[in-house]
Amino acid sequence: MSTSNDKRAIVLLSGGLDSATTIAIAQHTGFNCYALTVDYGQRHRAELTAAKQLASALNVIEHRIMRVDLGQIGGSALTDMNLPIPNTPSTGIPITYVPARNTILLSLAVSWAEVLTIKDIFIGVNAVDYSGYPDCRPEFISEFEQLANIGTKAGVEGTKFRIHTPLLHLSKTEIIQSGIKLGLNYSITVSCYQADDTGRACGVCDACRLRISGFANAGIKDQTRYTSII
Amino acid sequence: MSTSNDKRAIVLLSGGLDSATTIAIAQHTGFNCYALTVDYGQRHRAELTAAKQLASALNVIEHRIMRVDLGQIGGSALTDMNLPIPNTPSTGIPITYVPARNTILLSLAVSWAEVLTIKDIFIGVNAVDYSGYPDCRPEFISEFEQLANIGTKAGVEGTKFRIHTPLLHLSKTEIIQSGIKLGLNYSITVSCYQADDTGRACGVCDACRLRISGFANAGIKDQTRYTSII
Repeated sequence: MSTSNDKRAIVLLSGGLDSATTIAIAQHTGFNCYALTVDYGQRHRAELTAAKQLASALNVIEHRIMRVDLGQIGGSALTDMNLPIPNTPSTGIPITYVPARNTILLSLAVSWAEVLTIKDIFIGVNAVDYSGYPDCRPEFISEFEQLANIGTKAGVEGTKFRIHTPLLHLSKTEIIQSGIKLGLNYSITVSCYQADDTGRACGVCDACRLRISGFANAGIKDQTRYTSII
Repeated sequence: MSTSNDKRAIVLLSGGLDSATTIAIAQHTGFNCYALTVDYGQRHRAELTAAKQLASALNVIEHRIMRVDLGQIGGSALTDMNLPIPNTPSTGIPITYVPARNTILLSLAVSWAEVLTIKDIFIGVNAVDYSGYPDCRPEFISEFEQLANIGTKAGVEGTKFRIHTPLLHLSKTEIIQSGIKLGLNYSITVSCYQADDTGRACGVCDACRLRISGFANAGIKDQTRYTSII
């Protein structure tokens, strides 16, 4: 059983800027981290490569990569190669929204957490500089926490799962500043929705735009390599 | 967008008695069914073979099999071959409990539902003759329904997902009687936790025991083949 002194946590790690910062913050607050990456059929492999490098650089206890083929479900520009990534900002929830993604990711994290008798789970969702995804909002996280406590053996037996979202109310600039303070090497991270195999970013998708302005506002130089001059 | 007249549903189909009956009931109440089977690394393949046969026999619109390797997570006798299936009833939640399984299954169902603009999802959970799993209880289902409405684009845009559980308050005998009335061919279904590759059941695991007493109490002969005389 996990106890209140149990300072182990599972952190969802995509390979991007936010999840890398989330691990750094979790570690800084004393958690020994297990990283879970879900290979859900993303458009590119650069993100998974980045996740592996980050897990190693951040010295997590264990890094697990689980495959779930959401490409079979599609419905998102991130999982269906026939849907192009928008190069300009859209209104409303964008086509890069992956149906029920964070519910799926958190379900897998809770499943692993139960086996490891861990109660703390970190996810790098953000409700400030984000793309308008419904499963990045505080009410979703709070609801999922309740679900985890009701729908698991550990929960029924008294474990109180906690979904930590240290980035929830930070701007992209504040996220980057936090990571830099903690010594995080952002050059390994890949934010772009359509990076090439070598990790070069497009510079024009939502994720690139948020990253570029975040670094610019923080007055920090980003090492990201772009496929075109932007 | 789905409308109130949209009589399409996604049904989670394992290949067992309960999910087969759930499809039959959904169809009987006028739903055109899409079947979703999750190959999560179960001990045996007979269940997946049964799912395919059932999807065909029940004439579903589409049958999709998604692979999620919960064997990587383990922690259950259903996904970890090193944990034996108990041959006698246990007290409490048994070792066949798969951590967060129904949360994972329903998450994938909601994801597909969103893409198909379907709002109705059926799952054959049962809180009467069941094995004590926390994610088969009404409070879990109700909580998941809320989560789906909060954590998806469709939910935010007004879709009210409904998780239907027609078997929730039926005994195993009543479930079998319902299926027989609807003309369901139970000989295709596989309930056993450790069936062999040809679909023969062990006769002694929890799932076999529930099935055997269910058919006996209904006064109906089951065609299941067993590996030993029981």
